[in-house]
Amino acid sequence: MESSRPTAILLIACPDRPGIVSEVSHFLYENSGNIVDVDQHVDPGENQFFMRLEWEVAGFGISREDIAQAFAPLAEKFEMDWKLHFSDVKPKVAIFVTRDNHCIYDLLSRQESGELPMEVPLIISNREDLKPAADRFGIPFHLFPITKETKQAQEKKEIDLLNDHGVETVVLARYMQILSSQMVDAFPNRIINIHHSFLPAFPGAKPYHSAWKRGVKIIGATSHYVTEDLDEGPIIAQGVTQVSHRDSVKDFIRKGRDLEQTVLSRGVWLHLKRRTLVHANRTVVFG
Amino acid sequence: MESSRPTAILLIACPDRPGIVSEVSHFLYENSGNIVDVDQHVDPGENQFFMRLEWEVAGFGISREDIAQAFAPLAEKFEMDWKLHFSDVKPKVAIFVTRDNHCIYDLLSRQESGELPMEVPLIISNREDLKPAADRFGIPFHLFPITKETKQAQEKKEIDLLNDHGVETVVLARYMQILSSQMVDAFPNRIINIHHSFLPAFPGAKPYHSAWKRGVKIIGATSHYVTEDLDEGPIIAQGVTQVSHRDSVKDFIRKGRDLEQTVLSRGVWLHLKRRTLVHANRTVVFG
Amino acid sequence: MESSRPTAILLIACPDRPGIVSEVSHFLYENSGNIVDVDQHVDPGENQFFMRLEWEVAGFGISREDIAQAFAPLAEKFEMDWKLHFSDVKPKVAIFVTRDNHCIYDLLSRQESGELPMEVPLIISNREDLKPAADRFGIPFHLFPITKETKQAQEKKEIDLLNDHGVETVVLARYMQILSSQMVDAFPNRIINIHHSFLPAFPGAKPYHSAWKRGVKIIGATSHYVTEDLDEGPIIAQGVTQVSHRDSVKDFIRKGRDLEQTVLSRGVWLHLKRRTLVHANRTVVFG
Amino acid sequence: MESSRPTAILLIACPDRPGIVSEVSHFLYENSGNIVDVDQHVDPGENQFFMRLEWEVAGFGISREDIAQAFAPLAEKFEMDWKLHFSDVKPKVAIFVTRDNHCIYDLLSRQESGELPMEVPLIISNREDLKPAADRFGIPFHLFPITKETKQAQEKKEIDLLNDHGVETVVLARYMQILSSQMVDAFPNRIINIHHSFLPAFPGAKPYHSAWKRGVKIIGATSHYVTEDLDEGPIIAQGVTQVSHRDSVKDFIRKGRDLEQTVLSRGVWLHLKRRTLVHANRTVVFG
Repeated sequence: MESSRPTAILLIACPDRPGIVSEVSHFLYENSGNIVDVDQHVDPGENQFFMRLEWEVAGFGISREDIAQAFAPLAEKFEMDWKLHFSDVKPKVAIFVTRDNHCIYDLLSRQESGELPMEVPLIISNREDLKPAADRFGIPFHLFPITKETKQAQEKKEIDLLNDHGVETVVLARYMQILSSQMVDAFPNRIINIHHSFLPAFPGAKPYHSAWKRGVKIIGATSHYVTEDLDEGPIIAQGVTQVSHRDSVKDFIRKGRDLEQTVLSRGVWLHLKRRTLVHANRTVVFG
Repeated sequence: MESSRPTAILLIACPDRPGIVSEVSHFLYENSGNIVDVDQHVDPGENQFFMRLEWEVAGFGISREDIAQAFAPLAEKFEMDWKLHFSDVKPKVAIFVTRDNHCIYDLLSRQESGELPMEVPLIISNREDLKPAADRFGIPFHLFPITKETKQAQEKKEIDLLNDHGVETVVLARYMQILSSQMVDAFPNRIINIHHSFLPAFPGAKPYHSAWKRGVKIIGATSHYVTEDLDEGPIIAQGVTQVSHRDSVKDFIRKGRDLEQTVLSRGVWLHLKRRTLVHANRTVVFG
Repeated sequence: MESSRPTAILLIACPDRPGIVSEVSHFLYENSGNIVDVDQHVDPGENQFFMRLEWEVAGFGISREDIAQAFAPLAEKFEMDWKLHFSDVKPKVAIFVTRDNHCIYDLLSRQESGELPMEVPLIISNREDLKPAADRFGIPFHLFPITKETKQAQEKKEIDLLNDHGVETVVLARYMQILSSQMVDAFPNRIINIHHSFLPAFPGAKPYHSAWKRGVKIIGATSHYVTEDLDEGPIIAQGVTQVSHRDSVKDFIRKGRDLEQTVLSRGVWLHLKRRTLVHANRTVVFG
Repeated sequence: MESSRPTAILLIACPDRPGIVSEVSHFLYENSGNIVDVDQHVDPGENQFFMRLEWEVAGFGISREDIAQAFAPLAEKFEMDWKLHFSDVKPKVAIFVTRDNHCIYDLLSRQESGELPMEVPLIISNREDLKPAADRFGIPFHLFPITKETKQAQEKKEIDLLNDHGVETVVLARYMQILSSQMVDAFPNRIINIHHSFLPAFPGAKPYHSAWKRGVKIIGATSHYVTEDLDEGPIIAQGVTQVSHRDSVKDFIRKGRDLEQTVLSRGVWLHLKRRTLVHANRTVVFG
């Protein structure tokens, strides 16, 4: 579906100074980089510079193994926080679920169609409900029941399992457990959650019930990176839809499912396409 | 613009019981009511019934002066909370402003075009900034500077002034003062405010700054009836628009203005067209 | 997910006359009907009356077998075009696909979760591409390759197969063949299609390419009943999303998929919940 | 409202070649340009490069009078189509109206608040209806009644009048006359129109009536540059809102007004902020 020609993707964040764009574009130009996409952003309040560069690997003057080393001096000069990715390397993604099936089916159908460039080596759940969904797609399903007492130990096992599989990113597809700090720390800015409200409205449990009680006329969903503070992480994508007094809580839940799966998949797509940068608990999304 | 044939509008709220629709529609039928619009809603959780009926005054079997009396027995039987309005009676509306001009211009241009069926006998402000706007439309502008010390006394004078002019409804068009309970109590469910966020997110002051800091991807505006609890009143209408990391707080404010004026005018329109009912701090909007 | 208590659903369309609401509500009232939902609409231009009534089967004064007969005199009096459904009868739905997998996965996951009350006895396609998707859900997959020469004969076989399975409704989930009149006539207002544009903009083939070329800033999708005239059938639901000059045709296609699956599933839901009525090539959607 | 520090804005379009970004950013860097905003876009299909640069006049190494000359060699080298603007130069804008008042009030209130950086030396109309609106804001109102026979002559006079006033841009704020080619040619890509539909759906007259008849579930509005072909010009901005079977044509018109004024004002804002580029009948909008 996407171009089959592999690209290199460079994500840069650094203090804003004159000359960054000039020198970075010169680096690519002198190495005959065929630029596919470039986007940049300056946050004047934070005096922070952000950039995303994508160029074709083929024809570039530096072999893919040597790009990082060649770029390092420039990165050092401008004190860059930077990462280099290649579009033909599909990251391994673990999906966590509990009971609701819509987000996982949406993710897996997009993976199958090629829209989401990822491998899904395993699905983890605290309940058995969605084992059939995992089975349908032939993906190993690992059950980790969680209680207050077992949470730390179970999460520890989960982290080991994720590491064993070389998992880079975790997607919480309506996973109804709060992660402890050990899990969050193990995957910094690499755990994506879907919250079923328009954050920061209605954080926590049962947002649709709260929204109905408040009498809102629009409901929403939010995909975000998971941080220590529940529902406080950097927002990647949000979506909304209209509701009215005719809609019951059940209708809110039904309409919300459309948002949840779309907004989560969009967040995951942006992450996998290396289009997100996090700074000061906010995202720059090169969408 | 709208039909020039006057209509009677009946708004009903009562405990839900079998037979309400049957008897109310029979009342209209036997008096040859030419129904223009009918809408109803049952809230099963609250066991509450809501209805809006609109029919032509011309040809109705009961003269407009006698409709209320003729309907009273039915209303009593079903313990209705009800109101009767006539579409050709334009309510008097006072507009409160402070500094921002967009909402008042939008309201007045819609009044001039006939979209908003209201008279605006006066504009009240705590600052002089928008006197020129009032002058442009030839509407008396009353200045009531407010300090902590003078608020009670000034509001008292405002209430007297509003009553002298026969004002039915008050619209806070970006009025940057919190009303005290004496004002709220004087116009129950008849003061409409615009809050520049997607409530309940970002209540209180400077919502765009808070929204920017939180890194949201969508901003909103909310028109609502004013109650004692600031920003907690029944929501009439909400609107949203997309933002990105490219948008500064100033951009949030600029984009938000579009929402504010549209959402406030929509709330006022619904109110003036007698399409709103309030129950348990929620609105039924027969939109 | 939905209430397990079965309901009767009555859909009515007839010329508007005084007394319809009064008599219909009386019919339910005198038989102790516990109304769950009622909605009505009058189209003054067409002088047409539409109504949807839903009430609990349990406790109703007439047994479900006898309701139709009991209601017939009233229907005759007002010249009603009417249908009676029961919520616990799940219609059989056939899904037609070609290559794109997103709509069928979305439909099947919603069927599995109980959101869409239907049985899917078979999937039909003109290509083999999506057989694996059908297999994942254990649904028989029938291949009917279509050429200009074979279309009539193949469609005839399809109709026979659909009838053999007692199929009530056909969903075209990105089925890339135009149906001939024999198929359309066999399922009047019971074939639902998703068109990947905001109709009536960009009918026909390759709408995303046309939209990109025209430089639109918003794209859409439309679910509609299929009629003889391609892309001209009554619209059930529409959705839109923003695009910019940054989006290529591929981006249009990717963003459009979100709309297509959501808008198609919404159209199917409305149809299965008996919330749609068709008159003069327009739908009344009791949403 | 906006920063009071003047900026230079450079808009560039040229064939895409390696080195453009590198050399342009070097030009600014070596002259100590304090960049406020930079955005670029490459259309691979058209092999076309687009860029918008904004930097502070104060502190720049070249005085504002000499910037154009200093940049010319670079522009020539890359065969650029380019324009240089300064943010503190407010263009003169003429507004054309007919009967509807909402768009002109919205434009003038935004001009008054400082959101739209423009001067409005005159308002032109083919009818007298909106003279009072012009009077309210103290803007000269020029009446040019148009008939088939007089159109060419009247337009000629209008063009002379616009030139006498040094008008740069013309805004058609619900002006109900089709411009002939002499007017369009006199202001290439400098006439902005609002069409009250979601183009390309429902071009031409009475789009709300057509939309209602087609039974759409969403209506829209489109602001675009005016070209010879009616409703075919490059789209700047679009907006949409939901409608249902409950909405009459009058409701479409009422809801559409919200869109029209918002979408037109947004289009004018983007134009005045020098955020639009036109190529191959499409716009690049650096929004």
